[in-house]
Amino acid sequence: MSNSLADLRRDLATAYRLVANEGMLDAFGHISVRNPNNPQHYFLSRSRAPGLVQPDDILEYDLDSNPIVPPMVRPYSERVIHGEIFKARPDVNAVCHHHAPSIMPFAISGVPLQPVFHLGAAMGQRAPFWDSRDEFGDTNLLVVKPEEGASLARALGKHAIVVMRRHGATVVGGELRELVFRVIYSAKNAEHQLAAHMLGHVSPLTDGEAEMAAGLNLAPGPLARAYEYWVTRLAKSEGRSKSDPSVKAAEAAARRPVPNAASSAKPAAKTSKKAAKAKSKGAAKGRSKR
Amino acid sequence: MSNSLADLRRDLATAYRLVANEGMLDAFGHISVRNPNNPQHYFLSRSRAPGLVQPDDILEYDLDSNPIVPPMVRPYSERVIHGEIFKARPDVNAVCHHHAPSIMPFAISGVPLQPVFHLGAAMGQRAPFWDSRDEFGDTNLLVVKPEEGASLARALGKHAIVVMRRHGATVVGGELRELVFRVIYSAKNAEHQLAAHMLGHVSPLTDGEAEMAAGLNLAPGPLARAYEYWVTRLAKSEGRSKSDPSVKAAEAAARRPVPNAASSAKPAAKTSKKAAKAKSKGAAKGRSKR
Amino acid sequence: MSNSLADLRRDLATAYRLVANEGMLDAFGHISVRNPNNPQHYFLSRSRAPGLVQPDDILEYDLDSNPIVPPMVRPYSERVIHGEIFKARPDVNAVCHHHAPSIMPFAISGVPLQPVFHLGAAMGQRAPFWDSRDEFGDTNLLVVKPEEGASLARALGKHAIVVMRRHGATVVGGELRELVFRVIYSAKNAEHQLAAHMLGHVSPLTDGEAEMAAGLNLAPGPLARAYEYWVTRLAKSEGRSKSDPSVKAAEAAARRPVPNAASSAKPAAKTSKKAAKAKSKGAAKGRSKR
Amino acid sequence: MSNSLADLRRDLATAYRLVANEGMLDAFGHISVRNPNNPQHYFLSRSRAPGLVQPDDILEYDLDSNPIVPPMVRPYSERVIHGEIFKARPDVNAVCHHHAPSIMPFAISGVPLQPVFHLGAAMGQRAPFWDSRDEFGDTNLLVVKPEEGASLARALGKHAIVVMRRHGATVVGGELRELVFRVIYSAKNAEHQLAAHMLGHVSPLTDGEAEMAAGLNLAPGPLARAYEYWVTRLAKSEGRSKSDPSVKAAEAAARRPVPNAASSAKPAAKTSKKAAKAKSKGAAKGRSKR
Repeated sequence: MSNSLADLRRDLATAYRLVANEGMLDAFGHISVRNPNNPQHYFLSRSRAPGLVQPDDILEYDLDSNPIVPPMVRPYSERVIHGEIFKARPDVNAVCHHHAPSIMPFAISGVPLQPVFHLGAAMGQRAPFWDSRDEFGDTNLLVVKPEEGASLARALGKHAIVVMRRHGATVVGGELRELVFRVIYSAKNAEHQLAAHMLGHVSPLTDGEAEMAAGLNLAPGPLARAYEYWVTRLAKSEGRSKSDPSVKAAEAAARRPVPNAASSAKPAAKTSKKAAKAKSKGAAKGRSKR
Repeated sequence: MSNSLADLRRDLATAYRLVANEGMLDAFGHISVRNPNNPQHYFLSRSRAPGLVQPDDILEYDLDSNPIVPPMVRPYSERVIHGEIFKARPDVNAVCHHHAPSIMPFAISGVPLQPVFHLGAAMGQRAPFWDSRDEFGDTNLLVVKPEEGASLARALGKHAIVVMRRHGATVVGGELRELVFRVIYSAKNAEHQLAAHMLGHVSPLTDGEAEMAAGLNLAPGPLARAYEYWVTRLAKSEGRSKSDPSVKAAEAAARRPVPNAASSAKPAAKTSKKAAKAKSKGAAKGRSKR
Repeated sequence: MSNSLADLRRDLATAYRLVANEGMLDAFGHISVRNPNNPQHYFLSRSRAPGLVQPDDILEYDLDSNPIVPPMVRPYSERVIHGEIFKARPDVNAVCHHHAPSIMPFAISGVPLQPVFHLGAAMGQRAPFWDSRDEFGDTNLLVVKPEEGASLARALGKHAIVVMRRHGATVVGGELRELVFRVIYSAKNAEHQLAAHMLGHVSPLTDGEAEMAAGLNLAPGPLARAYEYWVTRLAKSEGRSKSDPSVKAAEAAARRPVPNAASSAKPAAKTSKKAAKAKSKGAAKGRSKR
Repeated sequence: MSNSLADLRRDLATAYRLVANEGMLDAFGHISVRNPNNPQHYFLSRSRAPGLVQPDDILEYDLDSNPIVPPMVRPYSERVIHGEIFKARPDVNAVCHHHAPSIMPFAISGVPLQPVFHLGAAMGQRAPFWDSRDEFGDTNLLVVKPEEGASLARALGKHAIVVMRRHGATVVGGELRELVFRVIYSAKNAEHQLAAHMLGHVSPLTDGEAEMAAGLNLAPGPLARAYEYWVTRLAKSEGRSKSDPSVKAAEAAARRPVPNAASSAKPAAKTSKKAAKAKSKGAAKGRSKR
């Protein structure tokens, strides 16, 4: 992903529409990225439905969620979710708040989300809950005050996703594409966990399996492969041709052999447990490709 | 929304197709709006599948549901639902009767619908039931006689939605866009409530949370944001371009800062409980933007 | 619907693709109509996926399911379903055999399908089961031998739908559009019944309600309204414009006031129970509009 | 299907996109075919999302899963699934590894998949489980080492599908189209089994029914019929016209009368149990049409 801010705005706008196209965002929800040139600033769309966000809609905020340039347009009222998490988690460079349908039964029932298949391990080993009632009593449930955002960030702790009671979820990532992968596959994990629950038995990954599977799924190869797919689906849904620059870029990224492609051409090239562990920690600590 | 009747017909026809496009209406169901120039009259389509309704299909009725001009086309047989509710509820200016798939299990089982997430709070704090059997015994279940419509209106009472046993639901709003938001998000609320029930536990909003969340969701900002999204999806589904007038209008409405946009640019600008309460009551009493 | 056989072939091919487009048929299943000029013959497509059937694919059979003209193409192996039902039920002029996803859990579990909402009443008051094992022991489950078709027809009896254990369902109608309505709304009824079951309680229509609601739903007005919707959706899905002849015809049929349109313009014009009963019987006995 | 390798690459690429279009593959999963000219080699795409695979993406491997030509692109890391199964099962000429949503609840809960309707019998009489933990303890769950692939092949045994705990499934076929049919209808079978389970009772096919139904479903007629449908849906989804060569070829194949078409024009021409049994075994042993 390019370093230029114009590219960043374009990539962020694409991420909004891509996640909406996959069904995890509707008229509401939002995604932010930290400014790579100034970690005390972040980028977020103006208040707009994710499926419609364009590069020009992206605004810049400081970590207290004050706009850098007074906006002529309406901002999201819940932007403190992003600012307070960027403050609390220097390893996080991208945040998504959403109400994906498959996550909602867990947010409503209080049943804990668990990683139940290898791709779902992108959610991490566990998903803590945050209940606005605990500290703030009856509210309109939106996270609008800085202290509400800070409370949510504390509940998130060192995890990759926090489930918000009667509201939705907030997911974080070391970089934008990792975040998108985690949003999509934690939502699919939730769908599968509910269905397995209906069959009467949920058998989750062990902590070791979850850690190793997450490390592998979020490696450059699988990320590029998934991203090419989602970007192409978005372009198709938006009536753009396959020769669209975003599709071409994703295709080239997915085609490019990764550093260890030569070795991975040998079937036994499985990442050792130790290496996977190291990789996985790197991911949690904000592995950035920029 | 413009005051002209031509605009009203166009907006109403769009609402029919928009709600159908989101999946809450199929070949059946209907939406009405009160005549803003004559509160003793209302507008409703001729008997046509909602997904196909055009401005020319809109007919005008008095509150006894008699057509103002003898129609050359077939009217909906259930129009007394609209007339009797407009009679009983001066604060209501828009009504939708539907059989959305996610509402049906509640209509069939008799399990009460409850607000289970902040956007679902648009349904209000509770959804009373109406059973045609109670007063009328075995019928074909349609609401066709004035006394049946009046009975339904009594069951609705001061609420925003009434669930009709073995039939569907009827939803009301202070104005058309508020109604559309309520229809869509009460249906999503039902979907999430069923899924949470499958996990074994439904934890609804408190009355206070439901009241404050409803006040916020139905405020001009979120309404305009959601409407831009739905209108754009409809235009796309109908093969109309982004430069379609309805899309342009929705986009402009969503871009326009609301009166309190300046203050809402500060993160702490959360509506106080008292203010939210006042707002919410305003909504229930027919807050109209015309 | 026109009397000409060319029109009949076109209408039948449209019905195949329409029901597939609504999701009740996939690569398998089939629909037949009795020859209006010769009740001892019926029409059925050659062995082809329903979503692809064209007028030229329609073949003619006698009631022993022998082709009138030796075909150069492969016939459906299960055509005795149609021939044996046309033999046993002179009031039936259209038959559909399908494996709609929402019907399958009932076919597999043996839980009886019940009318649970007014539109679902199109299925009739009850849906008997047929189990190929009872008379024939272990088979490949297809209904291929004449005696198997006759056994199925006996299980259907005087009803409108028979659920086939571990296989699917067969639905009958007095004419093609009534059949299509019944196939679509009995499948939706099954979907709603399963969802209500998940909530813990299914409260079906009384026999009286089911009879009256069925009589009303299958009347010319609602049928034409639903058909215009489905035909338009099909044309859109097939990339045909709104000026397509089939769309124009359905639109005109739905716009035409029915004989009692004048009276139905008065809100109290609800069909009396007696009239509804008579109508409903008429429907079961093969009310044909040709 | 033609013998030329160019045709094979095209048919294999079509199969990837076709199964993705039907919803059983997303960004992950893969399909292989054995080289008909050299049974010690097989073909598999480079590491790419199935919905995007083109003929040029297909690479050739030996049965130890080493590339025949050193690739300039990234290979799938799980290709030993294919190589080890081709080694262990000379009757298998096509393999698909996937994470279809409807299969996941069975992979997670450990509830056995059972054939519950005639088309679902394509999965065979039972679906064994493989759990990577049993032999390998905590891993990242991917099947990357040759010994992991060999272990999976042992668990598959003589069956047509093996369910992989907390991961997905692997399905095999005598030829590519049989494999595609089995992947799609075993996934539909899983969907129906879950729904029947919700109704409280699952009544599977007897072993005799499953064997006879599988033999019939995988015969040339039904396979060609289903393939024409899926290929046409894919072409439509990809914006290709009906005159696309792949559509024309599938249409011609489906139109061509099978050898026994003359006899099957007589309704009583049902395959005897003995014949069905023989046919079914042929299928399991790698009936190839090449």
